[in-house]
Amino acid sequence: MHTGEYSEFKNGLLDQAAPLRARIRSGEHTGTTSGMAHSLVQGNVVILPADWAADFLMYCQNNPVALPLIGVSEPGNPALPELGHDLDIRTDIPEYQVFRSGERTETASDIRDLWQGDFVTFVLGCSFSFEDALIRAGLSIRNVEQRSNVSMYRSNIATRPAGRFRGNMVVSMRPFSGADAIRAIQVTTRLPKAHGAPVHIGDPSLIGIGDLNAPDFGDPVTIRSDELPLFWACGVTPQIALENARPPIAITHVPGKMLLTERLNEELAVL
Amino acid sequence: MHTGEYSEFKNGLLDQAAPLRARIRSGEHTGTTSGMAHSLVQGNVVILPADWAADFLMYCQNNPVALPLIGVSEPGNPALPELGHDLDIRTDIPEYQVFRSGERTETASDIRDLWQGDFVTFVLGCSFSFEDALIRAGLSIRNVEQRSNVSMYRSNIATRPAGRFRGNMVVSMRPFSGADAIRAIQVTTRLPKAHGAPVHIGDPSLIGIGDLNAPDFGDPVTIRSDELPLFWACGVTPQIALENARPPIAITHVPGKMLLTERLNEELAVL
Repeated sequence: MHTGEYSEFKNGLLDQAAPLRARIRSGEHTGTTSGMAHSLVQGNVVILPADWAADFLMYCQNNPVALPLIGVSEPGNPALPELGHDLDIRTDIPEYQVFRSGERTETASDIRDLWQGDFVTFVLGCSFSFEDALIRAGLSIRNVEQRSNVSMYRSNIATRPAGRFRGNMVVSMRPFSGADAIRAIQVTTRLPKAHGAPVHIGDPSLIGIGDLNAPDFGDPVTIRSDELPLFWACGVTPQIALENARPPIAITHVPGKMLLTERLNEELAVL
Repeated sequence: MHTGEYSEFKNGLLDQAAPLRARIRSGEHTGTTSGMAHSLVQGNVVILPADWAADFLMYCQNNPVALPLIGVSEPGNPALPELGHDLDIRTDIPEYQVFRSGERTETASDIRDLWQGDFVTFVLGCSFSFEDALIRAGLSIRNVEQRSNVSMYRSNIATRPAGRFRGNMVVSMRPFSGADAIRAIQVTTRLPKAHGAPVHIGDPSLIGIGDLNAPDFGDPVTIRSDELPLFWACGVTPQIALENARPPIAITHVPGKMLLTERLNEELAVL
């Protein structure tokens, strides 16, 4: 490709985002964003009142693997122009989870009614970015094969606290055979802003998981006898910290229903 | 460090090689070279008559993970100046294994009497280079902890044949806990000329290994219940191919008793 062709190719990839966000904004799409907008970064979202923002920012800083920060809004401003030219965080997520004093109280398809002038939005990288990279590397991802949400579990791996935020890491799990597991570790290492390499491989009980068939979030998937489970830090981790910190109000995405951005996964890759 | 200091530092590392080779040459050191000459590349060695060299070169080309070629001599010339300024392959290995028609017939502490004017020497990278890198990354290697040779096994992973050379891959095994296993995969990925990343992780029976406590070469090591075995391609693989190809004569190192070179492990690293 010469430069002009490359620019067209890149713009073609980026141009996927706005129409998909428009379908989400209109309420037409309320499901998972898994497999949507190949090549584009998807984000975990945490929205908090400004007086909780400094602690949360430090919590991201302390836990860059579970909470890889890729965007922060101005207080009260629902735009995040560096992540999407017309992005409006009040409408552009398929389904929102509202937390009140740490309890999951309601879900919503938009949050214009709940918006506060002091809300700060945090966007964190998501494993859907590395799923795209794994598929491009020729690996087969079980939850994608089975058209289900990824399996997520509350582990016993403690995060490093910051202010009122603390709690154990949530991990997502994907099974691979030996050689594919090694390749998956290499591929995901390139994407630290999408949680990077796994945090554990093998026996789930060593990280406090009792039954792989009973995930705490998402769906169970088949694990074959020649496969090992690989566990990656997951962007649902801050939801556990919200349960513990109990801010009067906080809003997140529903696990698996992410924010579509106009950043390329490859832009966030190292090496 | 400024440039002068760096140059001194590098020369200090390289200067380890010649005196150690001199001790080996004199017959003073006949044991394993494990843990000797930190930072320096050690090599697996295969010496063959020139009419077998083209097939063997192609066998290396076909199997770069098991047979990562780092040096080839001129026919009949026992020097390999790019690997050591005074290197003499007839004397500089602690113990040699002689193969006659594919049979291991004798060992020797030097091969001046056996040298032929048509001998070609092949030097292949060795996992001792990545052991150095793993230790620098803060990981503990069981065979180093236990001051034993690494465990090596005949796997059922077929190499890609070339001419008369064919056979299954020999693998070395080191156990690590989950997080350390992931780090070990990352660290060794940087060193493709020292076999690179593992070829398998987990259940040994999946690559044809029955009993980890009964290695085919080297010593058994303890594997703890929270650990997974990691298997790397091993430079003993060509010895299996020699058993199959049955050249009239071939000479190798004895497993674990390697050639010390004047190349830095970091010179051979990628990324």
